[in-house]
Amino acid sequence: MLIDFETAVNELRKAENVLVLTHANPDGDTLGSGFALVRILRQLGKKARLLNNEEIPKKFSYLYEDLKQEDFREETVIGVDIADRVLLGKETEEKYGDRVNLDIDHHGTNRLFAEKTYVEADSASCCEIIFLLAKALGITIDKGIADCLYTGCSTDTGCFRYSNVTERTHKIAAELLSFGADHAAINVKMFETKSFSLIKLQTMALEQLELHFDGRVSFLTVTRKMLDETGARDDEIDALVALSRQIEGVQVGVTFKEKPDGVFKASVRTHEGINAADICSAFSGGGHERAAGCSFSVPIEQAKSRMLSELQKYFQEG
Amino acid sequence: MLIDFETAVNELRKAENVLVLTHANPDGDTLGSGFALVRILRQLGKKARLLNNEEIPKKFSYLYEDLKQEDFREETVIGVDIADRVLLGKETEEKYGDRVNLDIDHHGTNRLFAEKTYVEADSASCCEIIFLLAKALGITIDKGIADCLYTGCSTDTGCFRYSNVTERTHKIAAELLSFGADHAAINVKMFETKSFSLIKLQTMALEQLELHFDGRVSFLTVTRKMLDETGARDDEIDALVALSRQIEGVQVGVTFKEKPDGVFKASVRTHEGINAADICSAFSGGGHERAAGCSFSVPIEQAKSRMLSELQKYFQEG
Repeated sequence: MLIDFETAVNELRKAENVLVLTHANPDGDTLGSGFALVRILRQLGKKARLLNNEEIPKKFSYLYEDLKQEDFREETVIGVDIADRVLLGKETEEKYGDRVNLDIDHHGTNRLFAEKTYVEADSASCCEIIFLLAKALGITIDKGIADCLYTGCSTDTGCFRYSNVTERTHKIAAELLSFGADHAAINVKMFETKSFSLIKLQTMALEQLELHFDGRVSFLTVTRKMLDETGARDDEIDALVALSRQIEGVQVGVTFKEKPDGVFKASVRTHEGINAADICSAFSGGGHERAAGCSFSVPIEQAKSRMLSELQKYFQEG
Repeated sequence: MLIDFETAVNELRKAENVLVLTHANPDGDTLGSGFALVRILRQLGKKARLLNNEEIPKKFSYLYEDLKQEDFREETVIGVDIADRVLLGKETEEKYGDRVNLDIDHHGTNRLFAEKTYVEADSASCCEIIFLLAKALGITIDKGIADCLYTGCSTDTGCFRYSNVTERTHKIAAELLSFGADHAAINVKMFETKSFSLIKLQTMALEQLELHFDGRVSFLTVTRKMLDETGARDDEIDALVALSRQIEGVQVGVTFKEKPDGVFKASVRTHEGINAADICSAFSGGGHERAAGCSFSVPIEQAKSRMLSELQKYFQEG
């Protein structure tokens, strides 16, 4: 059931012993939202903790390292930035997929899997929504919360670069800086640090760059072999995904990443006028207008040819 | 002579038949400030034009393409974002170096070469200052002005990424979006478009990457030969300059770029705790704490060894 902002605020007020869920392959927005929510709920005198459904990349440690562990039997389960229960990851989905009481999200493709869902599809990040909820709850936005929320505001907008940024995004960022968010250090961690391994991987991937539709579409591929050879980590690939769309003339950049189980995850990035979520929905994926994803459980060449057919259809219809 | 904000506003009110100067190798901040100022002065009923002291990179054409040419004999000369008269470029310096009536700048290293100088060294961009002056002058910030000012706010902060960003920067960005700044399209042009040539140049430069001081210092080199071989343009090198500091463990990134006259321009980028302007001042250069530049009229190996000696001193003293 879709709920409005006031109801979401009341749900948070009523919540007790809260387990907060993020999506799998957690990014800055789901983690920033999740840890901010834990901090907000604790400030309201409640018990709250985040379920780490898989290892959180080390670069995000500043989001939680000052938080004490809390052990309790969960009564309320809240998801943040989760458009679909399958995005919880297999294990978490099995355990909590049909037990999410409240989902707070900014994906227009949200499948309303939770008991109650608050969605703002035009919000640049889930952290923007959590910021507004925090203000409505009347809590003090301390440095810890500000760092968490700034992280999502920054990472989900390519550091205020993308078309999802609104006047509100910058106003909230200004407030978060005034509340002590360590913006420069966070951006260095999120955007300004590339390992040698990543630089090697990037060079390797660019050597095998494929262009289609007269250079309007780029395909980058990252296999397990390339990750093994360069020593680059899965969570470093975001920089490459961004690059797929940055090549002059490219309107759709697709990065195919081989997961450890052999599935290829396609990250689709588009420029204005092309809807990435629409393209990915053909493969049961989803996301936003400019950034979306889907998965292929077939060999890479088949995955590519399916994506090409879909793009062909999309270009013909559009 | 240093002047205060009110005096700067009055100088702009008094100015007639204004020639606006930018620095040579113009970037988004000097051009955004310059064209915004031309638009502001015209709105006040004055004649104003920008002196294009060298070819403006094509990607900036949206800053001025709707502006009509105006021909008049200049009475007032105003510089924007110019820390030193030598930065005007040889030809412009000869003609106007001692005739600048007002300089509006955000470099702490400003040499006060103008008759009157208004400097805010803690402003992230010169465009932030022009924005405040525009408001004080009571003009309407239209889309044209908003696009110009957003350009400087974004480019001089690495799109709101760097430590020079303040609460004010985001507040101004929010206002500029409300005034119609086409932020997403501007950021695509400024940050999201890499030519194939640049990608080739980047790969080539990274293959020759030098690390010094246990990986704390990186040296990238771009020669005319590399530019010729890849077809990359001088004005595309900024992306590479940013990369010099993004390598894990690197605190000081230096990019040596060979200019057509054989001079090597060094762009120095630092992380917190290391002052790039201090380092460059040893070579009569200057800039900001995290981003500065200087020039070497000696062969590249000598330039590198001089820079290494200076860094050695800097690390020992610091």
